Amino acid sequence: MTADADLIHFEDLEPGTTFSLGPMPVDKAEVIAFASQYDAQPMHLDEDAARHSLLGGLAASGWHTCAMLMRMMADAYIRRMAGEGAPGVDFVKWRRPVLAGDVLSGSSRVLTRRRLRSRPEIGIVNMRHQLVNQRGEVVLESENPVMVRIRAPDGDLA
Amino acid sequence: MTADADLIHFEDLEPGTTFSLGPMPVDKAEVIAFASQYDAQPMHLDEDAARHSLLGGLAASGWHTCAMLMRMMADAYIRRMAGEGAPGVDFVKWRRPVLAGDVLSGSSRVLTRRRLRSRPEIGIVNMRHQLVNQRGEVVLESENPVMVRIRAPDGDLA
Repeated sequence: MTADADLIHFEDLEPGTTFSLGPMPVDKAEVIAFASQYDAQPMHLDEDAARHSLLGGLAASGWHTCAMLMRMMADAYIRRMAGEGAPGVDFVKWRRPVLAGDVLSGSSRVLTRRRLRSRPEIGIVNMRHQLVNQRGEVVLESENPVMVRIRAPDGDLA
Repeated sequence: MTADADLIHFEDLEPGTTFSLGPMPVDKAEVIAFASQYDAQPMHLDEDAARHSLLGGLAASGWHTCAMLMRMMADAYIRRMAGEGAPGVDFVKWRRPVLAGDVLSGSSRVLTRRRLRSRPEIGIVNMRHQLVNQRGEVVLESENPVMVRIRAPDGDLA
């Protein structure tokens, strides 16, 4: 168990702070399993149909790519952060197909941060996320605010 | 197999057109399974920890709620739509916790639409999605653009 003070807090997340994500291989069976449960469209389920589509191969559901991003973020920093969840997502752009057999990696970077007036022990940290495939092509861009506890709420950090 | 002309096309998606989503029960085992694979934080995994948290109970990952939204959209209209995928998501707001045992329902509504100059056979349809729980409380709001084929590309629909 990590002591709370050792967790990543608001004070540690200066603008520009960057966490590396991945690498994560995109597993064909997982692409099909996710799609079967949540997004049963042919391009996510059927390799032959997908190969002849504009996507060029069996493609992960966009929401599956978001779930893989979440997994990479959890592994890279969220599970050792004094986080209080996220109120939402500012945007997601699915820039290119994510195909079975691809390997994803990327980064999460702190853009801006501010304290919450209504909850002085919490700050909002705006993060920018990017995933690329094994050719370095951007496949996903996203930004979202996360709520992070402040180590020293009485400090004078802006 | 549905004939292509019978699918929902751009022409059918007038602003205001609304599709009902759900109902979909939020299954505890599925909440834990999704979190174990993609978002392994205590409030999504451990019923006891979650009950004593601000969330008040075992809560689905926000990305799991998005995946459940996708499933409800696929069942309600996407699998019978002449769709060409989506370039992204304009925003997602996770308004309230989604707890194991909740039952979700909601709607997808056409906001605006426009033809693509670059691809005259395709139009962009901007959709607004909302999910509520069994008490009618809004748990998720989102908007996103979807690409839909035009039945009669030479028609003069605005």
